[in-house]
Amino acid sequence: MSLLTVGTVAFDAIETPFGKTDKIVGGAATYIAWSASYFSKKTNIVSVIGDDFDMNELALLRSKGVDTTGIEVKEGKKSFFWSGKYHLDMNTRDTLITDLNVLLEFNPVVPESYKDSDILLLGNIDPALQIKVIEQLPKRPKLIVLDTMNFWMTEPFIETLKSVIAKIDVLTINDAEARQLSNEYSLVKAAAKILQMGPKYLIIKKGEHGALLFHDHHVFFAPALPLEEVFDPTGAGDTFAGGFCGYLDKTRDISFDNMKRAIIYGSAMASFCVEKFGTERLKELTHRDIENRVREFIDLVQFDIEIED
Amino acid sequence: MSLLTVGTVAFDAIETPFGKTDKIVGGAATYIAWSASYFSKKTNIVSVIGDDFDMNELALLRSKGVDTTGIEVKEGKKSFFWSGKYHLDMNTRDTLITDLNVLLEFNPVVPESYKDSDILLLGNIDPALQIKVIEQLPKRPKLIVLDTMNFWMTEPFIETLKSVIAKIDVLTINDAEARQLSNEYSLVKAAAKILQMGPKYLIIKKGEHGALLFHDHHVFFAPALPLEEVFDPTGAGDTFAGGFCGYLDKTRDISFDNMKRAIIYGSAMASFCVEKFGTERLKELTHRDIENRVREFIDLVQFDIEIED
Repeated sequence: MSLLTVGTVAFDAIETPFGKTDKIVGGAATYIAWSASYFSKKTNIVSVIGDDFDMNELALLRSKGVDTTGIEVKEGKKSFFWSGKYHLDMNTRDTLITDLNVLLEFNPVVPESYKDSDILLLGNIDPALQIKVIEQLPKRPKLIVLDTMNFWMTEPFIETLKSVIAKIDVLTINDAEARQLSNEYSLVKAAAKILQMGPKYLIIKKGEHGALLFHDHHVFFAPALPLEEVFDPTGAGDTFAGGFCGYLDKTRDISFDNMKRAIIYGSAMASFCVEKFGTERLKELTHRDIENRVREFIDLVQFDIEIED
Repeated sequence: MSLLTVGTVAFDAIETPFGKTDKIVGGAATYIAWSASYFSKKTNIVSVIGDDFDMNELALLRSKGVDTTGIEVKEGKKSFFWSGKYHLDMNTRDTLITDLNVLLEFNPVVPESYKDSDILLLGNIDPALQIKVIEQLPKRPKLIVLDTMNFWMTEPFIETLKSVIAKIDVLTINDAEARQLSNEYSLVKAAAKILQMGPKYLIIKKGEHGALLFHDHHVFFAPALPLEEVFDPTGAGDTFAGGFCGYLDKTRDISFDNMKRAIIYGSAMASFCVEKFGTERLKELTHRDIENRVREFIDLVQFDIEIED
């Protein structure tokens, strides 16, 4: 099986209560690919970078089975750059700089060799570009997962966003975004409304408070692992999505029960991501590390109650 | 087995985005007793009320196996009264009125017939009174559970609070309080520090985000049930504690594994509590309702991952 993802490959500069970085490699597709690489045999990226990008980083990804053919390099242009500062609670951050650079002229082209990908994960970019990617695929992927954010839930983007949402299977957003998109405060009511917009599954990410998976009238909850320290939350959501889709791709099973497992694996990957700056921690994991972390999730939530019928 | 609880029996007036009440019956011990009554054969209350209290409410509790012998009625005095208003997110509230009334001269006396209680649940009151209760028991209960709040974590109460905390087995506080008490932002670090203060178990309540149980180096997480509507969160924490202790009392097992189950039952009771104003919903439950609700918790978090060793 194979996974196709579209999203940013970029530079970030991050400040947290624990320290700060110069320009380091970031971007949704980067986190997604690193995370998925522990599961998927082949992860295909469509993205755009400038010639200022560190090409060794792409070589590293390729060594993990990531196909970077679809990353367009714009000569004489600069890569997307984001800089932000986190507050103590790590749930809120201030954006200091957003230099769109090559992203301004991003026109995603899906290489021929990617067109039979089984799962499509649309990272958070302009919904007009997300639609363009779907339209380039001659055969609908088995599963389309879409990540987006509050920015696209306002005029003039919201109508386009809704038209993408109508075409996908799984939507991943955070709790504030679910409330904004649905105009409902209760997440249960919000989920019911959003599921009526098209997707069969909705994942509401609540950061340190875990994630909820809604499907029909079912709901599944996966906690976040309580960590001694959240060092840098950048990319945690993308890492979650990459692990989620990578696990589904590896196991070739997109049932609700397997999505529960995929959410646990995605949460495990996200719990690693936040332990160091950028993608640093994601680069050094072993499969044993991941299995041990998943075991911690099992210990965290499993209990054993016998109910008499 | 039997459960002894000490706490307020009082009047509340509550305003939420969904409506408001006149004076209704509230108080920590009231919620605790209603919740525990579904599990414990005998719940013993020590409290104080004025002669303005609705004595039919005590009769109702007695009909559920609650012993109200230890509720002192002060003639010519008024019961404790609290009035508050919740905001849309239901996690924050403004206190509008606090009339301590009889609470000002509360001197808890444990009746002889209560002195062999197996579990002691100290509801949120002045820690000096909580100590007085412990000192009146000739034999240490099998388990002492203490609930408290941020107000007692400041001068001049904090030293007394710490001396009570050193004597108990289980402490239940919310996340902000755990941070305040430990001076640590990370809940994992906060828990480690608090467990060094004496208790063997720490429950950190996170409202709609569930609850964490810490013990040694173990941690268990119980989610809150995602509800369509949280109608009135007043008393949810006390209801949780009452269900938790009631379940432990009924099952006569205070192991870590059984505490996990008790937390699920406590969470189930709290999820009922918030569905109507005051104790209204807690008064009308059946055992079947509770079992069905616990089943929803099981469905919410159970997943099935096989890890190869």
